[in-house]
Amino acid sequence: MLNGPNLNLLGKREPDIYGKATLSDLESQLKKVAGKYQAELDFVQTNSEGKIIDYLHAAEGRYDYIILNPGAYGHYSIAIRDAISSISVPVIEVHLSNIYAREEFRHKSVIAPVTVGQICGFGFNSYILALIAAIQLKGGGVPND
Amino acid sequence: MLNGPNLNLLGKREPDIYGKATLSDLESQLKKVAGKYQAELDFVQTNSEGKIIDYLHAAEGRYDYIILNPGAYGHYSIAIRDAISSISVPVIEVHLSNIYAREEFRHKSVIAPVTVGQICGFGFNSYILALIAAIQLKGGGVPND
Amino acid sequence: MLNGPNLNLLGKREPDIYGKATLSDLESQLKKVAGKYQAELDFVQTNSEGKIIDYLHAAEGRYDYIILNPGAYGHYSIAIRDAISSISVPVIEVHLSNIYAREEFRHKSVIAPVTVGQICGFGFNSYILALIAAIQLKGGGVPND
Amino acid sequence: MLNGPNLNLLGKREPDIYGKATLSDLESQLKKVAGKYQAELDFVQTNSEGKIIDYLHAAEGRYDYIILNPGAYGHYSIAIRDAISSISVPVIEVHLSNIYAREEFRHKSVIAPVTVGQICGFGFNSYILALIAAIQLKGGGVPND
Amino acid sequence: MLNGPNLNLLGKREPDIYGKATLSDLESQLKKVAGKYQAELDFVQTNSEGKIIDYLHAAEGRYDYIILNPGAYGHYSIAIRDAISSISVPVIEVHLSNIYAREEFRHKSVIAPVTVGQICGFGFNSYILALIAAIQLKGGGVPND
Amino acid sequence: MLNGPNLNLLGKREPDIYGKATLSDLESQLKKVAGKYQAELDFVQTNSEGKIIDYLHAAEGRYDYIILNPGAYGHYSIAIRDAISSISVPVIEVHLSNIYAREEFRHKSVIAPVTVGQICGFGFNSYILALIAAIQLKGGGVPND
Amino acid sequence: MLNGPNLNLLGKREPDIYGKATLSDLESQLKKVAGKYQAELDFVQTNSEGKIIDYLHAAEGRYDYIILNPGAYGHYSIAIRDAISSISVPVIEVHLSNIYAREEFRHKSVIAPVTVGQICGFGFNSYILALIAAIQLKGGGVPND
Amino acid sequence: MLNGPNLNLLGKREPDIYGKATLSDLESQLKKVAGKYQAELDFVQTNSEGKIIDYLHAAEGRYDYIILNPGAYGHYSIAIRDAISSISVPVIEVHLSNIYAREEFRHKSVIAPVTVGQICGFGFNSYILALIAAIQLKGGGVPND
Amino acid sequence: MLNGPNLNLLGKREPDIYGKATLSDLESQLKKVAGKYQAELDFVQTNSEGKIIDYLHAAEGRYDYIILNPGAYGHYSIAIRDAISSISVPVIEVHLSNIYAREEFRHKSVIAPVTVGQICGFGFNSYILALIAAIQLKGGGVPND
Amino acid sequence: MLNGPNLNLLGKREPDIYGKATLSDLESQLKKVAGKYQAELDFVQTNSEGKIIDYLHAAEGRYDYIILNPGAYGHYSIAIRDAISSISVPVIEVHLSNIYAREEFRHKSVIAPVTVGQICGFGFNSYILALIAAIQLKGGGVPND
Amino acid sequence: MLNGPNLNLLGKREPDIYGKATLSDLESQLKKVAGKYQAELDFVQTNSEGKIIDYLHAAEGRYDYIILNPGAYGHYSIAIRDAISSISVPVIEVHLSNIYAREEFRHKSVIAPVTVGQICGFGFNSYILALIAAIQLKGGGVPND
Amino acid sequence: MLNGPNLNLLGKREPDIYGKATLSDLESQLKKVAGKYQAELDFVQTNSEGKIIDYLHAAEGRYDYIILNPGAYGHYSIAIRDAISSISVPVIEVHLSNIYAREEFRHKSVIAPVTVGQICGFGFNSYILALIAAIQLKGGGVPND
Repeated sequence: MLNGPNLNLLGKREPDIYGKATLSDLESQLKKVAGKYQAELDFVQTNSEGKIIDYLHAAEGRYDYIILNPGAYGHYSIAIRDAISSISVPVIEVHLSNIYAREEFRHKSVIAPVTVGQICGFGFNSYILALIAAIQLKGGGVPND
Repeated sequence: MLNGPNLNLLGKREPDIYGKATLSDLESQLKKVAGKYQAELDFVQTNSEGKIIDYLHAAEGRYDYIILNPGAYGHYSIAIRDAISSISVPVIEVHLSNIYAREEFRHKSVIAPVTVGQICGFGFNSYILALIAAIQLKGGGVPND
Repeated sequence: MLNGPNLNLLGKREPDIYGKATLSDLESQLKKVAGKYQAELDFVQTNSEGKIIDYLHAAEGRYDYIILNPGAYGHYSIAIRDAISSISVPVIEVHLSNIYAREEFRHKSVIAPVTVGQICGFGFNSYILALIAAIQLKGGGVPND
Repeated sequence: MLNGPNLNLLGKREPDIYGKATLSDLESQLKKVAGKYQAELDFVQTNSEGKIIDYLHAAEGRYDYIILNPGAYGHYSIAIRDAISSISVPVIEVHLSNIYAREEFRHKSVIAPVTVGQICGFGFNSYILALIAAIQLKGGGVPND
Repeated sequence: MLNGPNLNLLGKREPDIYGKATLSDLESQLKKVAGKYQAELDFVQTNSEGKIIDYLHAAEGRYDYIILNPGAYGHYSIAIRDAISSISVPVIEVHLSNIYAREEFRHKSVIAPVTVGQICGFGFNSYILALIAAIQLKGGGVPND
Repeated sequence: MLNGPNLNLLGKREPDIYGKATLSDLESQLKKVAGKYQAELDFVQTNSEGKIIDYLHAAEGRYDYIILNPGAYGHYSIAIRDAISSISVPVIEVHLSNIYAREEFRHKSVIAPVTVGQICGFGFNSYILALIAAIQLKGGGVPND
Repeated sequence: MLNGPNLNLLGKREPDIYGKATLSDLESQLKKVAGKYQAELDFVQTNSEGKIIDYLHAAEGRYDYIILNPGAYGHYSIAIRDAISSISVPVIEVHLSNIYAREEFRHKSVIAPVTVGQICGFGFNSYILALIAAIQLKGGGVPND
Repeated sequence: MLNGPNLNLLGKREPDIYGKATLSDLESQLKKVAGKYQAELDFVQTNSEGKIIDYLHAAEGRYDYIILNPGAYGHYSIAIRDAISSISVPVIEVHLSNIYAREEFRHKSVIAPVTVGQICGFGFNSYILALIAAIQLKGGGVPND
Repeated sequence: MLNGPNLNLLGKREPDIYGKATLSDLESQLKKVAGKYQAELDFVQTNSEGKIIDYLHAAEGRYDYIILNPGAYGHYSIAIRDAISSISVPVIEVHLSNIYAREEFRHKSVIAPVTVGQICGFGFNSYILALIAAIQLKGGGVPND
Repeated sequence: MLNGPNLNLLGKREPDIYGKATLSDLESQLKKVAGKYQAELDFVQTNSEGKIIDYLHAAEGRYDYIILNPGAYGHYSIAIRDAISSISVPVIEVHLSNIYAREEFRHKSVIAPVTVGQICGFGFNSYILALIAAIQLKGGGVPND
Repeated sequence: MLNGPNLNLLGKREPDIYGKATLSDLESQLKKVAGKYQAELDFVQTNSEGKIIDYLHAAEGRYDYIILNPGAYGHYSIAIRDAISSISVPVIEVHLSNIYAREEFRHKSVIAPVTVGQICGFGFNSYILALIAAIQLKGGGVPND
Repeated sequence: MLNGPNLNLLGKREPDIYGKATLSDLESQLKKVAGKYQAELDFVQTNSEGKIIDYLHAAEGRYDYIILNPGAYGHYSIAIRDAISSISVPVIEVHLSNIYAREEFRHKSVIAPVTVGQICGFGFNSYILALIAAIQLKGGGVPND
């Protein structure tokens, strides 16, 4: 679970768009869900484009899936796109808000073409759905099956 | 669960992109998932832009959520966009394939700005995730909670 | 009087933009005005692009003028544009709202170049003005002349 | 009733587009119509962008409605647009010809977004319809009601 | 032989562009040509985008070739494009007029990339040539061989 | 029959796109077809833009129709376009491949607007169809009539 | 001879582009040339777009030709373009500098399409050549003929 | 201190954007500030593009700096841009509002490239800062130094 | 005097645009004018882009001025542009017709930025004016001075 | 006072654009000015986009204003833009040079829409003016009041 | 070693960009380098697009590598691009100057996508490096290995 | 020798594009080549945009040439571009693959205009050629001279 720039301010930043719960609330909630499926997850955040690339590289051979909220870097960081192409771990892109209902420049994701798929607009649920997607793709089946 | 043009050919159309399972396989699978959550769902498909609008209008007051795969109409039908704005039932947009990894003209969805959010790239799982999303948003909580 | 997609929801759809009166209120009001001028009018609505074309074709030889609110189809339906060019009955384009004060994609009407003219922004009055325009063009003179 | 550049040549300028009647013919015809509704109207023309702005400013508190044919300035004068936004008198935009059936650069009106609405393509009738629209909006009801 | 919107008006619509012969004249002429080559053809026309998609789907397994005049839908209907990709029957695109010698927006065909090829500009002969092309591709050789 | 740049390599150049038959195979085949219709044809190829213009000029008064495969020059040579406009012999444009199914820059033909029409995507048959088209237009009627 | 904005500063403004001679030097020089051909010329300058329109209107019936240096207004004043279309006196457009060798925005003249022709890049000679052109077009023949 | 179109309505025009203080309030405030630095300033406003050019020309040799709020003309008046280039008095561009936080068309200033610099977004303070900038550039040093 | 593609057809090509006089009529007329000024001129035409470049290179050291009608090559031949930059002989660009009153693609000249200036729209007079311009620039003064 | 990439080279980097004084000269000068107003300021520089975001986050609750020279990141870093939106401390954007008088790509600031305002083109004075602006906005009044 | 238009003027053309050495100096220098590696090279130059295509065709089966300086044709000649694709000899593209540091239109090479690679900006060394590249690719190893 | 993002994965990342040799293989190979020419080189890699800028700054006064593979940052990092402009050490841009034969967004290098030149498409040889280029430019002459 890899979080990009400004997500550390979750709960403080523009709460009418992003809600009041914090990133660590999200972490707890996700770990609880993961627990139900016997899945493990690590959770990191960084404001640095270079570090996101480092994290992606480091994931090789250690994780089954990466759930990435690239934040604003998703709109222009071809370097992160290349990092995703460079590794064999599949990446699922998530966004808290519906990026297509916001400013024009948020409608384009340069990383989307090299990810498995995209989930956006469901707040914290975007992450939970991505986690379930990863579990399903991994073979965990429909929840509670 | 509202399916747009060419989805009736699922399983036959470009199976390397869309897989071999048919729309009715999808329907069964979704009804099974819905069953676990005591949710009900109707499932329709049409190739006509006008009928999609009619279905959206008819949903007013009858459904809690609409899960819409607009097919190619999603790329240019402002009429469907207006139909979504015209009703109070929230709409979740789904796509089987990752539309951002395909032709340029599939990268733009004119309906996305008026939906709750978008899930794409997970095949049948896109629909299942959307269904779970609808249940969560309706208050059904995290699956198996 | 030919009404395009979503206009059947008039009075229900986004009432802060379109007001609370319904399409059938509009029909009555227009028929009353037409009556004063000894004009007759038929009034139809459809959500289907193909049916709008059918209606336009059917108007040939039966009407003096067509007042068309193309709804969202006006922004991309070259097929409707061609239907207008295909018949000899002149068409007047109307819009309830001022389409130029709304989203960028509503600023372009692909049918405008083949109509007589356009009236937009006056709510129901857009239709009444179009009706008077048709009567004037038909030779009915300035109202009450 | 405010007329922009080149309208003083009406009747002389490109008569196949604009007809042979002059601006003063139009003035008489409009005053006659206004008379029927107990409405008063002033009628001016200028070729100067700055003077159009001055006239708009001067209208504040003196008129209920302004009917403006901005001529070519409508295609690029953001200064006139700002003048319209600066006053509280509502403005109705009119054009003699159907500007959407002419050169590409005439399809864009920079003032349209700040007007009440637009009427174009009906020749002198564009003005008469605008006058009736103003009277209706002022509460005068449907003509002869 | 599948004909799109407004082609039912052939002979009546803009005769200086499309000539005076009607669609049924065309049908007879084509059937005569087909007869010489022991080929059979069905001939349909519809103004509805959805029905064109239905017809394309229904052609699967029943025809060797589809000759499609998409009319204006060819310029924007990605749904029809997808329908063509969804079936295994090859499609030949025809146009009566030379679409490249007309308005800019007619220069682009969104379906051309998924067809076998395109024939335009030869009036009724466009269809006859397409029919001969289909026969040649089917192995019928050069006419009269 | 006028062939532009690189067509001399036919059969050698990118055989998966253009096939293995050579330009001289094509010439024989076309002469055989022409023979059946008592038509005569000359057949030339050049890599030089200037010579294509010279050939077009020289055709004036000597040929009834020119069938032109402009090769890549068709995408940018306004000089060839002007040469076509400069003569009274009508020109039919042909392409072996479906240029609309290839790179974006091959979708635009600057000469198409001044030709009679275009046939593309049928390999050698593109030429044969063009020859039949020329014969039909010349009054030769439907083949074998 | 009608001069637009900033030309009054000629000789003072950016002398490396426009030289050191003043507008009144130009006037004398032109009157001398005109004298040789028994031609008369009036010479005015204004910084006001509206006044240029007034001058153009006033030329109707009084001059055989107008030589117009529109200055920067030539790049955007559709109002001046319309004024030129509104009168029957032909207009020749001149520029001192080669506008195509300067900033991108100076490459477009919105008035050029409605003038007889354009002469630019020859400094004062641009005007002299335009004067000779007017005399030739008027029937004065080649100078000194 | 040169003010362009609609600034005369300051205090009345869109007070939520521009505040309630008037242009003459601004003048007093600026003169008071200027007084502290022994600087003199003249203060004019006009709605006419031509007059702004005249004022700029007239400034030559009379002022050390011009502080210009071009209003909407700043977005398209190349004629004013040329006037600034034509004189040797340096110009500082000011805007009351942050033009980059408003409509897209307000983001471009065609005069900015020929000014010393730009100050926007600080309301009346934009002018005061520009005045201080002029004094500093003139050699007046940091205020109160 | 260097003439580009299709100019050899002058008098035959589109006579409503280019008139009925031929290139050799033009040559005689120009030589007569040149004679009056004791100027000599050579006159060539070619349809080949490469030969135009050769002619330009060959002019180095042999001519004082080149008058070039680049025909359609002027719209895209950067190679000719580079040839003009490569030599020290100044080039004057001429066009018979007003290229700005024709198709959009004729509005752009890629060679204009490296020429002295441009004269267009005056038919044969375009050449005569260019000749006089060359003589003036060479120091020949105003004709008949 | 937050300085972005390459500003550490101030005084060394392109001195004809940026002058010879160094960043630490600037710091001293600003601290001196701040001192006069009893204002305090911290002064940092970094080449890292991620660190700029960290600094912006860290400013929350500790500073009244941030004066930010984003350097080249201002042209594309939506991540920095989001960081500015994420905090409640207002940001003033400064540039040493007039970015509108330089390359096209420097004309666009993606952060400008979320700042208070922008000051550019005054060298070190840009910073001093921004400091005064911050003090004025904070209530410090006109300097020396 | 194939040189395109205007390269024959090397040493004379714009020496501040291209230096003073001539094409034949370059030829000698390259032959000397080739000699060291027991490589042979032919060296040709032409201003004709058609001849470049002819040379490329003729290289088939005769050369191991082609080093091509396409000159300005590289920016628009799709015909040369197709010629490169038509042959099996690999092509290395060279430019004397850094084309990316010059005019915008020189930044695009339409042939680059079908070459092995590109070397630009090193003057004569661009060619020498390309020669070494060809030798390395041919298996000649690192120089002097 | 400065390597940008993702190059640390060389040999692992997309081996069909980049080959199987690693960055440290490359380092050895380059040092061997450098040795032959008595040249020294340092070799670094980083995924951080900020660090690339730091490295570039640090090179000032320490290296004769920088060979930079900017990776994906080359497509959008104006900050790196500015860093290159800020130092006096010349930079040579290299790419392993032919970036012009890949996705559209890889065709643009924002740093190319401020480098000496560019070498791309030769795999490891791109670096070796750049090294030789640096040695040649430094005065080392043609290899083995």
